[in-house]
Amino acid sequence: MNTFGNIFRLTSFGESHGEAIGGVIDGCPPGIIVDKSFIQNELNRRKPGQSHLTTSRREADEVEFLSGIFEGRTTGTPIGFIVRNTNAHSSDYDNLRDIFRPSHADYTYLQKYGLRDHRGGGRSSARETVARVVAGAFAKMALKKSGIEIVAYTSQVGAIRLDKPYSELDFSLLESNPVRCPDPEKAQQMIDLIETIKKEGDTIGGVVSCVCRGVPAGWGEPVFGKLHAALGNAMLSINAVKGFEYGMGFDGVRYKGSEMNDAFYRRPDGKTGVKTNHSGGIQGGISNGEDIYFRVAFKPVATLFKEQQTVDVAGNEIPFKAAGRHDPCVVSRAVPVVEAMAAMVILDYALLADALAFNTM
Amino acid sequence: MNTFGNIFRLTSFGESHGEAIGGVIDGCPPGIIVDKSFIQNELNRRKPGQSHLTTSRREADEVEFLSGIFEGRTTGTPIGFIVRNTNAHSSDYDNLRDIFRPSHADYTYLQKYGLRDHRGGGRSSARETVARVVAGAFAKMALKKSGIEIVAYTSQVGAIRLDKPYSELDFSLLESNPVRCPDPEKAQQMIDLIETIKKEGDTIGGVVSCVCRGVPAGWGEPVFGKLHAALGNAMLSINAVKGFEYGMGFDGVRYKGSEMNDAFYRRPDGKTGVKTNHSGGIQGGISNGEDIYFRVAFKPVATLFKEQQTVDVAGNEIPFKAAGRHDPCVVSRAVPVVEAMAAMVILDYALLADALAFNTM
Amino acid sequence: MNTFGNIFRLTSFGESHGEAIGGVIDGCPPGIIVDKSFIQNELNRRKPGQSHLTTSRREADEVEFLSGIFEGRTTGTPIGFIVRNTNAHSSDYDNLRDIFRPSHADYTYLQKYGLRDHRGGGRSSARETVARVVAGAFAKMALKKSGIEIVAYTSQVGAIRLDKPYSELDFSLLESNPVRCPDPEKAQQMIDLIETIKKEGDTIGGVVSCVCRGVPAGWGEPVFGKLHAALGNAMLSINAVKGFEYGMGFDGVRYKGSEMNDAFYRRPDGKTGVKTNHSGGIQGGISNGEDIYFRVAFKPVATLFKEQQTVDVAGNEIPFKAAGRHDPCVVSRAVPVVEAMAAMVILDYALLADALAFNTM
Amino acid sequence: MNTFGNIFRLTSFGESHGEAIGGVIDGCPPGIIVDKSFIQNELNRRKPGQSHLTTSRREADEVEFLSGIFEGRTTGTPIGFIVRNTNAHSSDYDNLRDIFRPSHADYTYLQKYGLRDHRGGGRSSARETVARVVAGAFAKMALKKSGIEIVAYTSQVGAIRLDKPYSELDFSLLESNPVRCPDPEKAQQMIDLIETIKKEGDTIGGVVSCVCRGVPAGWGEPVFGKLHAALGNAMLSINAVKGFEYGMGFDGVRYKGSEMNDAFYRRPDGKTGVKTNHSGGIQGGISNGEDIYFRVAFKPVATLFKEQQTVDVAGNEIPFKAAGRHDPCVVSRAVPVVEAMAAMVILDYALLADALAFNTM
Repeated sequence: MNTFGNIFRLTSFGESHGEAIGGVIDGCPPGIIVDKSFIQNELNRRKPGQSHLTTSRREADEVEFLSGIFEGRTTGTPIGFIVRNTNAHSSDYDNLRDIFRPSHADYTYLQKYGLRDHRGGGRSSARETVARVVAGAFAKMALKKSGIEIVAYTSQVGAIRLDKPYSELDFSLLESNPVRCPDPEKAQQMIDLIETIKKEGDTIGGVVSCVCRGVPAGWGEPVFGKLHAALGNAMLSINAVKGFEYGMGFDGVRYKGSEMNDAFYRRPDGKTGVKTNHSGGIQGGISNGEDIYFRVAFKPVATLFKEQQTVDVAGNEIPFKAAGRHDPCVVSRAVPVVEAMAAMVILDYALLADALAFNTM
Repeated sequence: MNTFGNIFRLTSFGESHGEAIGGVIDGCPPGIIVDKSFIQNELNRRKPGQSHLTTSRREADEVEFLSGIFEGRTTGTPIGFIVRNTNAHSSDYDNLRDIFRPSHADYTYLQKYGLRDHRGGGRSSARETVARVVAGAFAKMALKKSGIEIVAYTSQVGAIRLDKPYSELDFSLLESNPVRCPDPEKAQQMIDLIETIKKEGDTIGGVVSCVCRGVPAGWGEPVFGKLHAALGNAMLSINAVKGFEYGMGFDGVRYKGSEMNDAFYRRPDGKTGVKTNHSGGIQGGISNGEDIYFRVAFKPVATLFKEQQTVDVAGNEIPFKAAGRHDPCVVSRAVPVVEAMAAMVILDYALLADALAFNTM
Repeated sequence: MNTFGNIFRLTSFGESHGEAIGGVIDGCPPGIIVDKSFIQNELNRRKPGQSHLTTSRREADEVEFLSGIFEGRTTGTPIGFIVRNTNAHSSDYDNLRDIFRPSHADYTYLQKYGLRDHRGGGRSSARETVARVVAGAFAKMALKKSGIEIVAYTSQVGAIRLDKPYSELDFSLLESNPVRCPDPEKAQQMIDLIETIKKEGDTIGGVVSCVCRGVPAGWGEPVFGKLHAALGNAMLSINAVKGFEYGMGFDGVRYKGSEMNDAFYRRPDGKTGVKTNHSGGIQGGISNGEDIYFRVAFKPVATLFKEQQTVDVAGNEIPFKAAGRHDPCVVSRAVPVVEAMAAMVILDYALLADALAFNTM
Repeated sequence: MNTFGNIFRLTSFGESHGEAIGGVIDGCPPGIIVDKSFIQNELNRRKPGQSHLTTSRREADEVEFLSGIFEGRTTGTPIGFIVRNTNAHSSDYDNLRDIFRPSHADYTYLQKYGLRDHRGGGRSSARETVARVVAGAFAKMALKKSGIEIVAYTSQVGAIRLDKPYSELDFSLLESNPVRCPDPEKAQQMIDLIETIKKEGDTIGGVVSCVCRGVPAGWGEPVFGKLHAALGNAMLSINAVKGFEYGMGFDGVRYKGSEMNDAFYRRPDGKTGVKTNHSGGIQGGISNGEDIYFRVAFKPVATLFKEQQTVDVAGNEIPFKAAGRHDPCVVSRAVPVVEAMAAMVILDYALLADALAFNTM
């Protein structure tokens, strides 16, 4: 259950304060040129300490590749990789050995496994997403050759919500501010809010939106492996995610079919297109060639610097106040993770579509 | 990709206007007493023609079991079953052979497969959910012995939204009205709305909420098989679903961590409990022993009786107006499907938890 | 665990004396022309009562297709099918309810499941292979278009062994005798032996050999999904199989590397070929374009008409003598089952190879 | 396809001359005490250079654990590990970049992937089995607590065959000679043969036998996941394996059912036992509580120091003579690999049996 995907697969390992985070990428198409600076840049977008809005833990997050790459290209064999943990302050967690932090996984891990590595949340730490970003970078490199592009951005922090449709946004502005919101005005409001929240020792939730462009029609499975179900499953596997919607999403339930249906028309190039795209690029679980877009809800980070009530493993009620280094809002660092998971799903479904095509023979 | 689950698995088959819908349930624990009237009742809750709010297609939806049951009990071997299609009016669809109905899967199926059974939507028809309801009934029968109960209900139709928390609802009223909303007042408003929409020849969306009670702490996988990701994947595999959220969901992003965290306390029985349950019964992907609750968004049904624009397979733009029999709002019939999928996931995770427990030895 | 395959998958169900044997074929490429008489002919090759060498149980073994086929072609959606049991003499088994037949699965099923359908061996009956023959027929139809041909034959019954290499055999003679041995002289010896054994009320083992021609180079996975491992797994899943070897097999261990290595050479067409084929068409788990050949060992049928010692479920030692209708030697009816499983594996690996090829984009 | 197992799973990575061989063990039960010296000893049994009968490549084969272990116990989370390659002489392989070594995977890898890491066979090297031995050691540690013991030994080298049944062997002698044959007389003959073969610059095949003791009745799946099929699949995934047989195997086909059936009897402890064990501890795919035993055929090593004919990637015929360091016979080093794969299968099926048992509830 630490493996993700059908054909393109990531098996992930590692705890927050263990030796390393790492993974094995299996099923990566052979012959992909490996751009290590691109991969490192993706990791840098996720890594802690990149701005004053994120945790001050400082990790180089340099990836070491151990297999599956030869003379600068993927070989089709599994790509093993590790990212060593270098800045773990495990002593920050000494007092947490016997305490269940509220809304963390401490209690449930102990119930499931009977024992746990309490340091930094162990396996439940979002540090595990390092492995996903690496695997996602390979998926992006593979998808690039056919013009598929995946872009995520922060669309909500607390009550500050970017309501413009993605088609009106300038994604070149995405990395111009530390919250990764492509609307400068909203971005500033979000930054201000996070700074305020941080000063309070509190945390706040948010939403990451994502657009996948260039996916051809015909990818996805009709019943249980619907493309949007795979994307939803992927997003819900990211730490702190509480919801997923695509296309019209939850808001669309208020409308009539006659308002929400996407009329087909003949495009100038002769192909079939849709006039609106309320479907979000997927119909009946299968891509229709339009942009795929979806939204992912992140709860406020559970670690905050105010006193909370909890119990210890012996069942004693005790007050608890977190120490250590944590993010006041997770969404800006979640943006590359959402992109990575989306890229992995899209590539996996490209390969599944190939399997169906029965081309070899 | 027509198989769902890890240990408890449903493989589903069948088209809307083919010979039969059916499935194979694999991994069902042996020795479960098979209550055929219960199974039929679950099917009746899903079947068409049960009220004036649903399609007038009339199907007996009687299930025939072909294997895996001996002397009234499950044997642990696969349970094959079929439900014959008896009331298919395939001629209603003759004119659809070459037309892409807007916001249906006609276009994407043809792109994926190169050919398709156009009659009644073929495999993309919600009639496929018959198989899920049968499998879900077995999951419910297996879960019942440990007191796990799964209840879904309609919480929104169009803009009419039931905002009461589920704990204030009387689920005994669930089947007392045709929309399956346990709040009689809201139910009537929903019914009125659906009747109005139906008269217009239009359709409307809605939301189904679901609660799983009695799930013990410790079920779920920590990274890629998170319990809520499995539930989300399950729900997003249901026809017309556009979104999934659990616990605080999308609404929770507006709040601070100090407002949303669930403080632990010592319950009177000495066990660890939470004062609030914003987490929705799952923390770090693993159940914590509290109620699991989530919401599922259904778009308005794509088939409506107003003229729409579309194209045919040759790329010609043509007007289109549906004939045949269809639901103006899908949520009331989706309620048992949501329950069925939830039950399948919960039982599957119970069995996975057993695998981890390493009890046999 | 009643599902076989990665992309092309069979999920099988049904007991020997239940309502029906059936299955669901998932992942079958769309557009394959369905030749129902071919499928029935494959079933006829497997069915009981086809000669005096086989059990006298008479089953029409007519298959009913329930989905996945439209206007004579596969649609790419799951193909559900059933074959009803019509000639089950369950009363033959009344006395077996509480007895463990020697070398049958009665004891182990009860240990595993805690209860069992004892009639005719229930799920452990070789009657289950009906579903495999149907699925194998679809695989053969799909493979035929690229010239891949799979032929199995009886190469040993008891001590009577056909030692000629397959390349010297005339496969057109395969169906000319009831043991399916393409060497008429050996065939007659085998038939004589089986008749003698049958008169004794005893049974005898045998070997089925199989050749797959036309498989291109490059199919198979390098480490855990080696093509020969998949074939071995497939063959070992057939009832009564005790061994699998491919290429030089067990006999080859006596030789030196210099005797067994297959020297490469340039074929007249410029392609790379091998002078010998001790490797059996697979090197490093991947097909090399040569014929794939392997042998499968079947034990003597466990049901025989001599008195044996056994115990009942209460642990009492009792004598036991089988009644009913049974095969004195299973190999002639196993030939189409071996072919079916081989065809399923080869097609599955064709589709996996497509997935790797990453052609769609 | 670099992942093995259902619940207990190994994902393996690494090339012979890459940075490292490694893997991720997923699904290992939590709380297992990790005996690092035992793991290292298992690796030492497999490693090159351990005697004059094996390749002179010298690797420390020291394993570094990166995750999944806390305070000396498994945590239930994935165990990432690496073994660095330190003694790779890649220059030995410079001349092999464009040559297909006979009966190696060079040609098939290139056909499959379009490119390959030619150094030392890359991913097709038996060096990959390092990862399996590590994972197998964990499986053994988990199985030990319930008294399950897995022992493999060399039973044949070339034509020298140990025909004594395993029950007459003294396994304490297993490590007393470098071929790992527990019969000292046969061992010496095998050693002499290998030395002779080595002097000739040639190689020879052999057979490894394996016994699994203490497996309780009821493990295994009835149709496609038969316990012996899983074992066969596991063994056939090991480099150079050409055949697998269990219980009576290929030899048993010559016998009558009345000779081969295992009569049940009431054991002194009141349980059901068998007087003979021709079934090899598995009936109908499910363990019956008796010893499980099987044999695995290994071909002669393909790398030998005599001139052979081959072609290069351009299709030119050229003579070829291997340089480098290689084993004249692989079986002694294969013994721990066979044990490791068997242990992984048995533990996996223990956990699957738990899943069926539905104990949690």
